[in-house]
This record gives sequence, structure tokens and C-alpha cells, in this order.
Amino acid sequence: MAVSIAHLGPAGTNAEVAALQYANWLSANRNQEVTLLPYASIAQTLQAVANGQTDLAIVPVENSIGGSVTVTLDTLWQKENIQIQHGLDLPVFHAFLSEAASFAEVQTVYSHPQALAQCQIWLETFLPHAQLVPTSSTTEALQHLTDSPTIGAISSERAAHLYNLPILAQPVNDHPDNCTRFWVVSLKPSSGGSHTSLAFSVHDTPGALVKPLQVFATRGINMSRIESRPTKRSLGDYIFFIDLEADIRDRDVQTTLEELANATQVLKIFGSYDILPGNVS
Amino acid sequence: MAVSIAHLGPAGTNAEVAALQYANWLSANRNQEVTLLPYASIAQTLQAVANGQTDLAIVPVENSIGGSVTVTLDTLWQKENIQIQHGLDLPVFHAFLSEAASFAEVQTVYSHPQALAQCQIWLETFLPHAQLVPTSSTTEALQHLTDSPTIGAISSERAAHLYNLPILAQPVNDHPDNCTRFWVVSLKPSSGGSHTSLAFSVHDTPGALVKPLQVFATRGINMSRIESRPTKRSLGDYIFFIDLEADIRDRDVQTTLEELANATQVLKIFGSYDILPGNVS
Repeated sequence: MAVSIAHLGPAGTNAEVAALQYANWLSANRNQEVTLLPYASIAQTLQAVANGQTDLAIVPVENSIGGSVTVTLDTLWQKENIQIQHGLDLPVFHAFLSEAASFAEVQTVYSHPQALAQCQIWLETFLPHAQLVPTSSTTEALQHLTDSPTIGAISSERAAHLYNLPILAQPVNDHPDNCTRFWVVSLKPSSGGSHTSLAFSVHDTPGALVKPLQVFATRGINMSRIESRPTKRSLGDYIFFIDLEADIRDRDVQTTLEELANATQVLKIFGSYDILPGNVS
Repeated sequence: MAVSIAHLGPAGTNAEVAALQYANWLSANRNQEVTLLPYASIAQTLQAVANGQTDLAIVPVENSIGGSVTVTLDTLWQKENIQIQHGLDLPVFHAFLSEAASFAEVQTVYSHPQALAQCQIWLETFLPHAQLVPTSSTTEALQHLTDSPTIGAISSERAAHLYNLPILAQPVNDHPDNCTRFWVVSLKPSSGGSHTSLAFSVHDTPGALVKPLQVFATRGINMSRIESRPTKRSLGDYIFFIDLEADIRDRDVQTTLEELANATQVLKIFGSYDILPGNVS
């Protein structure tokens, strides 16, 4: 049976590269055929799986340079029943695309804000006077390229090949270990694995955050990540997103999560999952 | 003696409103005259105080809707000796400016990404088909308004008056309690106060984050905020930014920070300070 995966499009985005790699994994390990469905935003990608329009969605959750993808965390908190099936760590190499004959001609560079941030030093070095203009995806940046040879875009090598556009330089990311973690999510229960992700709000009392964190400390469970996001009610009122090195199938972990429920206000458990290594894209 | 304050400009930004309010406080409480110096970015604002070009800088650190201003945190971690003198909590009301006769005419809306995010529901309700274009400040968005009556901008009421531009609707922020915390920083030691801010990296070992957090828990010191930012080395490698309800002038707090230094890799203490309530802008 074919499985559909929603991702941020159009074709050529890093999210599509991640979706293709996950499709290969599903084909090799579960003998499943896959249909890719591009969406215009990360929020719409998650909405598609929440509505049952697609079986799966793949969304970026954090990058080693830019940090958390906050729209993913905020949307997951708002939706019900979305569970993480897998993590996928994708090495990311950005390319600089332009019809310009040399860097000196380039006056404007379009790309997704995360991609611009990941190439900041390169841009300051080679294009110090260029105006940087954010777009909603790295692929969307490419539509400006045909306007003029004074325009450039930061996108993927795959997008350059797909749309037959010239690469002036690559890789242009400042840090060679640039890597993005994606989550594959669906409405099915997660099947367990080495990592557990959850989020909670706390009662507005002194020490409210220390209590839940002590639950993990006492049980010897390692937090590999903590991220705070505003509840949007008032300053100082947060939702905490936490990744644990723990598997929800373990009895000890289940007991810990029961204790955690008592130490928090609202607790959402996004499931336990394994992380797949992505190939160089 | 006159004191200079760097802020994100040009005139009319919320950072300028915060700088004006802090200038009033300095005038009333310390009898100091103030010169405001606008800069093109938050990074350049902090650079100005690090270089000694200005005495003070005022920068946004978090908003009740958008969350942390990550460029402020990342830049503070990179600079040496910058200390927080005060916090200032500014209530933020956004206005929608346009030469259009009605909402139906508006095709494009320019503003700072944080402002666009804070007015998301209003934009979806009243301008569902408008293209949203990010700019580097709310004031910079205004320069597009004169191009065409199909253009709108989200900015402050103050900017509308300063540049004599028509307000079509206000307030347009989705949450009435929209509030931004600013930090006033300088190269002088902080003078103490109700809040202490610091940041640290940890050794890459299991439980590395739990240890420093337990230091606070054991001593009964409340964390009012925790934010993780990538070290930009690899996924899963973080700097933690923490606000404590504690004053570094207390002996107990000093002892806690010595213990913290032993439980972390690199520890930076940004000082203790009081938070001033801002007026409605």
C-alpha cells in the first residue's frame, strides 16, 4: 500500500530531500511505496497530517546552527494526537545560485531566513554589499533568479539540477557540520525507540520548572535537549519542550512520566522513536 | 554628563520607544541627559557598546508571543564583558498603516518578522490573501508604503505620527498582553537587583545539563527562564541561557554561582539587575 508524506515544498527544498531519504528507508525496510506531497508552509504540512489528508509528515525541528524551528514546536503543541515515528538527521550543504558572471555583479540574495543565517559569514565575506531578502522556502527563492543577473539565491544542489540553474559556489554554509533534524510524524501511536520527546506547561509558582526537571534527575534519565516557548499569555509563562534519552516501552520510563504528569500542568507526550542517519544531500 | 544609548533604528521602532522610556528614567532618577543612537541591526547595536562607541545599548531579549530574540542571546555569548544594567518590560501595540482606502485593496504587507508573527491571526482574518514580506525593522517597512496604495505595513503608532502616515487599524496584535522585555547593557559592572542572567556550555557527557540545574534546585533558587541555543558545532551541543530570581550581591547566590562554575564548561554571568515596568507605548 502506498504511503503519503507531506513536506515543505516545492521540489528542491531540504525537507523534500529528507522526505526522499525517508521514502528510501520505507521502501528498503518496510517494502512501502511512497507518494510525496509538497505544502506551502511547515504549519500546513503538519495540518495535513492532523486532518488525515496524508499518512505522514516530515518537518524540520532543529538545525545545528539556527537552533529550534519554533513554528514546528508551536504547531505540535496546538495539535492533538500527533506522534513522532522517526527522527532523521540530514547533513545540509547550501549552494549559491546565480546567472551573474561574478560575485561583484550580485546585488540581492534571496533565501529562507534559516539558510541566510547558516551562510552569514560567507555572505559577509563574498557579498558584503548584497541586500538579503527572506523567502518562505529555499526553492521559492529561485523564482527571482530569472529577473536579473544581479540576483542570487541560496538553495540546494538538487534544486539547481531540478530547475537547471547555474551554481556559482558551493558549499557556502559557514559550518561544515551543518545538520538539520527532521521528525516524521503521523496520527498512529509511536512504536518506541531511543529518544522520547514531550512538552509541558507548569503552574505559575516559584520552583515550578525545577520540580519536573528533578523527576528526570532522580531517575537518572538524561535530557538531550530543552527548549522553552512562550504560552503567548504573558512574559515568563512558558511551555518546555524536552527530548529524553529514554524509551517509553521501559517500565521505569513509564513511571517517570506518571510522576512528571503530577509535577506539571499540561503534559503532552509526542512518543518514542529512533533517529535515522541521513545521507549527504 | 550626557549618556549615549544605542538601539535598533531608525526612529519609530519599538526599541526606540524603549530607549526613550529608559532615557526618561535616567533623567528622573539619576539626573542624566541622554543621546539616542540608532543602528541598523541588533548585532550592530551590541557591537557599538562592546567597542565603546556608546555608553549603553538597549536590545530586545524576549517577547511574550514570539519568544526569545535569538540574535541578542547569540551576540551576548560571543562578546566579552557586556553586563546587564536593567530590564525594561514594554507593552507593545502594533498598528496597520496603509494609503489604501480599504483592506480589500491591500496586496502586500511589510514588517519585521516578529511583528508579522504577533499579528498572524489579524492578518489571516482581515488580509487573508496578502503576501507577507519581512523587513529588518518595523520602521524600515514604511519605506515601501509610498510605492502603491496596495501596500501596507505593521509598525508603531509613534512611527505613523513621526512619518505622517495613515493608520487603517490598531491595535492589530493578536494578544492584548503583547509585551517585549529589553535589556539595557554596558561595559560597566552591573549594580545588582532582583534578577540574575547567565549562560553556560556543558561538557558532552550524559546528565551534563541536570548537574547545573540541580545546583539551583538544591539551593532553592528559582529559574524564571531557560533557553537553549546551539553552539554551532554539532546537533545536540548547546549553550543554556538562564534567568534566576536572585541577586548576585547575596552571599548564598555567590556560593551557588561558584558551584555552578564547577558543574559547567564555560560560564558567563551577565549580572544582576532590576526590571523597570515600561509605559504603554
